[in-house]
Amino acid sequence: MKPHGPIPPGFAADADGMLRIGGRRADALAEAAGDTPLFVYDRAMLTARAAEWRAAMPREVQLHYAMKANPFAPLLAHMATIVDGFDVASGGELALALASGMAAEHISFAGPGKRDRELEAAIVAGATLNLESAGEGARALAIADRIGTRPRLAVRVNPDFDLKGSGMKMGGGAKPFGVDADAVPALVRTLIDAGADWRGFHIFAGSQALDADAIADTQAQTVALAARLAEAVGAAPPLVNLGGGMGVPYFPGDRAVDAATVGARLAETLGARGAALAESGFAMELGRWLVAEAGVYLMRVVDRKVSHGETFLVTDGGLHHQLAASGNFGTVIRRNYPIAVAGRFGREADETVSVVGCLCTPLDRLGDQVGLPRADVGDLVALFQAGAYGASASPAAFLGQGPAREMLV
Amino acid sequence: MKPHGPIPPGFAADADGMLRIGGRRADALAEAAGDTPLFVYDRAMLTARAAEWRAAMPREVQLHYAMKANPFAPLLAHMATIVDGFDVASGGELALALASGMAAEHISFAGPGKRDRELEAAIVAGATLNLESAGEGARALAIADRIGTRPRLAVRVNPDFDLKGSGMKMGGGAKPFGVDADAVPALVRTLIDAGADWRGFHIFAGSQALDADAIADTQAQTVALAARLAEAVGAAPPLVNLGGGMGVPYFPGDRAVDAATVGARLAETLGARGAALAESGFAMELGRWLVAEAGVYLMRVVDRKVSHGETFLVTDGGLHHQLAASGNFGTVIRRNYPIAVAGRFGREADETVSVVGCLCTPLDRLGDQVGLPRADVGDLVALFQAGAYGASASPAAFLGQGPAREMLV
Repeated sequence: MKPHGPIPPGFAADADGMLRIGGRRADALAEAAGDTPLFVYDRAMLTARAAEWRAAMPREVQLHYAMKANPFAPLLAHMATIVDGFDVASGGELALALASGMAAEHISFAGPGKRDRELEAAIVAGATLNLESAGEGARALAIADRIGTRPRLAVRVNPDFDLKGSGMKMGGGAKPFGVDADAVPALVRTLIDAGADWRGFHIFAGSQALDADAIADTQAQTVALAARLAEAVGAAPPLVNLGGGMGVPYFPGDRAVDAATVGARLAETLGARGAALAESGFAMELGRWLVAEAGVYLMRVVDRKVSHGETFLVTDGGLHHQLAASGNFGTVIRRNYPIAVAGRFGREADETVSVVGCLCTPLDRLGDQVGLPRADVGDLVALFQAGAYGASASPAAFLGQGPAREMLV
Repeated sequence: MKPHGPIPPGFAADADGMLRIGGRRADALAEAAGDTPLFVYDRAMLTARAAEWRAAMPREVQLHYAMKANPFAPLLAHMATIVDGFDVASGGELALALASGMAAEHISFAGPGKRDRELEAAIVAGATLNLESAGEGARALAIADRIGTRPRLAVRVNPDFDLKGSGMKMGGGAKPFGVDADAVPALVRTLIDAGADWRGFHIFAGSQALDADAIADTQAQTVALAARLAEAVGAAPPLVNLGGGMGVPYFPGDRAVDAATVGARLAETLGARGAALAESGFAMELGRWLVAEAGVYLMRVVDRKVSHGETFLVTDGGLHHQLAASGNFGTVIRRNYPIAVAGRFGREADETVSVVGCLCTPLDRLGDQVGLPRADVGDLVALFQAGAYGASASPAAFLGQGPAREMLV
């Protein structure tokens, strides 16, 4: 038997063992949705998560949502009411962000390959572009000049450090993201001299880290880098986007980030920040941490079979909705996400099974030899930490399957 | 500098160096499509590939197309005219196969998680179900009985061997696919006794192998297994689907499968097959081998930048269309697919660059430190072997990007 990741706190079952999500039974949710597989996102857990962050962090730090983690429109509309800004990564995401009700002035757009039409859409809307290169800066200025608008432009900095222990390193060497730190002051001066509304810095060193001190150390480095750059520019950045970094526990042995420690150390860092950033605002940009735990992916057992002594639960879900959980997206060694039989939630395991999807490929495995209570054809299996990088980050069209249903409850 | 995979044969350039695909210039194709990124599939190369297969293989073996490799409707309609059957893996693919013009009697449907409505759709249409378990067989018989149709049912066999050197092993131990060999005869007898139209066996041991002898060895094992099963059943299978296995060269050092050797050895195997299979037909089921080389993915350079001495070409393409090429789908070590600057095709490299996509993630790398002729903003970059497991096997919605354009020329 192989272990699975920890079931997130906050989930409980009815007396008969049926998992509840957002106060409703998993079986009733599947019936209400009309079919499985189904993503369910718990609105109250999203709200609580944002509140948890605010309770831990210094009041002056804004909370931004990196919508790449989950762009489901009803979820996005809810997030617009509980965070201070959205970060988008394409013209498509920009359109969704604007439609969600978030004000353009609280939307920033980062991404290394912005096309001219995407730059123009952001400038016209009044969103902030996080410039990824001097070339992109020149294109943005030319577009703004042509349409007669003063553009809101920030500079994304490629930091000389990365976030220790992060699942995705976004700094610390040659990167396609942002402008190398030593070239930043000249670019900012160019923007200011051209009359642009310079909005500050975007510095994103990594994501999916669980060690609070590593995150805090990186934030301290980030603030120090922003201060050096501000001094070199000779102007205070209106906003320093400190990036994200706070991850979630997917795997056996993972432990949740200690947000209180991150917040306390960030307060110290900002308290000692010095004159160059005295007038600056700060933001953190979180995606996964805000939404992953609020999401559950429900799939139904279509077949139960034994091959060479190994029991398989074949479900109607799969990697076409859960690419990362199958171990095929950014991970080298496949490990089990948190998983449970929805109708026997919290019960002891009484067998070892492998949970696979319906795709005709050996890659489609969502639980490898995990211990679970007995499940039969028709039963629901729940995969947790499904609120981020699930539906939109998976090949939904693969093998003709199509997208999953999604609900915010 | 790191090497890239071999450019497939059959591509050439105009005098000015512009790559031609299907007799048309890459730049003209991008203009005709209206935008990049763009998949272009060469109809003549598809036709030639099927002819190459037929020239190499024994005449009695049918050629089936595993449409999971590429379900683009115009391509599928063309494939329907040059192969003998389609293999589908979902109700969605079944609908596309029927719409392509392929007759239902030449369509077979494999996949471990078929839902009742998918079984019913196949039975109603008259397609053959490759049953993955006794439980699925019972569901299929019950559905056929309810609607009063004699179902066409084959049994997928989980072989006790795998395909040596294959990228995807589909046999040789506990698998979610098919029925363990020792349980197959009883299931076939059940089907025959229930009055079903038993169509034979589906035995798929692996895919993406380049060693002709390994493929031929596996085919010999497959035929021997089918013969043993036929003797145990006491009836000749109308069709033995031998699976696929023939791969394509993606990476440096890869060499194309020697199809002539596969064909010659398959002729020997079938010539010596004995009485139990004397009346049986045979098919091979190929996806990738038929369509990968005919496809080219064209992306445009949006930015050219240098970070810490490394040059990046940032394109409007990315892993949202080319997940496998980014190294994030079924591969442990990332290596470079064949790649070229479309406007300087066949020219000597004069710099080392990394080609990245437009997604804001370090996973989105399509060429890592490859040697290429100089390319600037606006130039087209071509990724090869793009006809299989590209557009439909990638997370098209990720970061709000959406699907690529596709053309058959």
